[in-house]
Amino acid sequence: MGSVYCALVHHPVVDRQGDEVTTSVTSIDVHDIARSARTYGLQGYFVVSPIEAQHLVVQRIVDHWCSGAGKARFPERGEAIALVRLCESIDEAMARIEAEEGHPPRLVATSAKPGPGRSSYAEEAARLRTEDRPTLLLFGTGHGLSDGVLRRADVFLDPIEGPSEFNHLSVRAAVAVTLDRLFARKSLANDPI
Amino acid sequence: MGSVYCALVHHPVVDRQGDEVTTSVTSIDVHDIARSARTYGLQGYFVVSPIEAQHLVVQRIVDHWCSGAGKARFPERGEAIALVRLCESIDEAMARIEAEEGHPPRLVATSAKPGPGRSSYAEEAARLRTEDRPTLLLFGTGHGLSDGVLRRADVFLDPIEGPSEFNHLSVRAAVAVTLDRLFARKSLANDPI
Repeated sequence: MGSVYCALVHHPVVDRQGDEVTTSVTSIDVHDIARSARTYGLQGYFVVSPIEAQHLVVQRIVDHWCSGAGKARFPERGEAIALVRLCESIDEAMARIEAEEGHPPRLVATSAKPGPGRSSYAEEAARLRTEDRPTLLLFGTGHGLSDGVLRRADVFLDPIEGPSEFNHLSVRAAVAVTLDRLFARKSLANDPI
Repeated sequence: MGSVYCALVHHPVVDRQGDEVTTSVTSIDVHDIARSARTYGLQGYFVVSPIEAQHLVVQRIVDHWCSGAGKARFPERGEAIALVRLCESIDEAMARIEAEEGHPPRLVATSAKPGPGRSSYAEEAARLRTEDRPTLLLFGTGHGLSDGVLRRADVFLDPIEGPSEFNHLSVRAAVAVTLDRLFARKSLANDPI
């Protein structure tokens, strides 16, 4: 199995009207998604934003937990936050993965919207088990990844659906559920069909 | 299947040292867990805190999204937040469920710690499908539900485990994963074993 990374994308994403925008970084996303990424064995978590001032905010969080006062109080928080990597674009994340792994990553996109050409979680989990290349899982903020990103993806996962028609999970919840479906230590007994 | 509720418990929970404490309400927990509860078809989401001043904070969030300026901008947010119910104790949550449903709820406890007597998610999902009584899923803040709560539970679910030994998911992520494992619309194709 190749290394798996995730990226929280703040640009290019769309707003409620479908227009391409850049969203602000939310500090709780840095924490929660780092903790989920660490729990499910990911190699790194890219926070993707073209806005340099936002990088400073994220870097302060990283410094606090990885080398500052937070490290002594909650060392396991730093262990998760250490996965965070700041970058300006999806292309930069891909280039950095290629530099480390010797191969560009497969791109796996996620969306809350149903549509054609989606992959099930079981199919993607099976691919990940036999795949030597690295994989980058892409999660959009705002109202989701822009069409240009979706067109570049090698795999496009099914939306997460509960028993209701409501599909407005937070991105923090969506990342946790996606990673659980792909990477949880599962036994038949723990896996209701 | 009986109605299912969840509760985010701020007392009685334990701190890092295992001492019983009361934690503060975190506003993002109100949002994220309401959205997850709505996605997975829960009947209500109890925010349990004995501190009245904290109730005022939560009530302001509820009012903003269910009848204030937020309702017009993001109606689906209000649809989720409408599930939020404030109460002072687990006993009050149970009494309110009993008053509505005509039967006290089964108590299902969660913990990040492994131990004896745990139930798998598959077992609990199967019980939920055939159970007529209401069910209340309990999630602890801080370092988890106190022993007194755990002893009262009818069911104690397995901890959520990824492929790593790291078990510090945020409570927001843990709720999302638990609800997904118990209630997601699943097909064999979407369910990697």
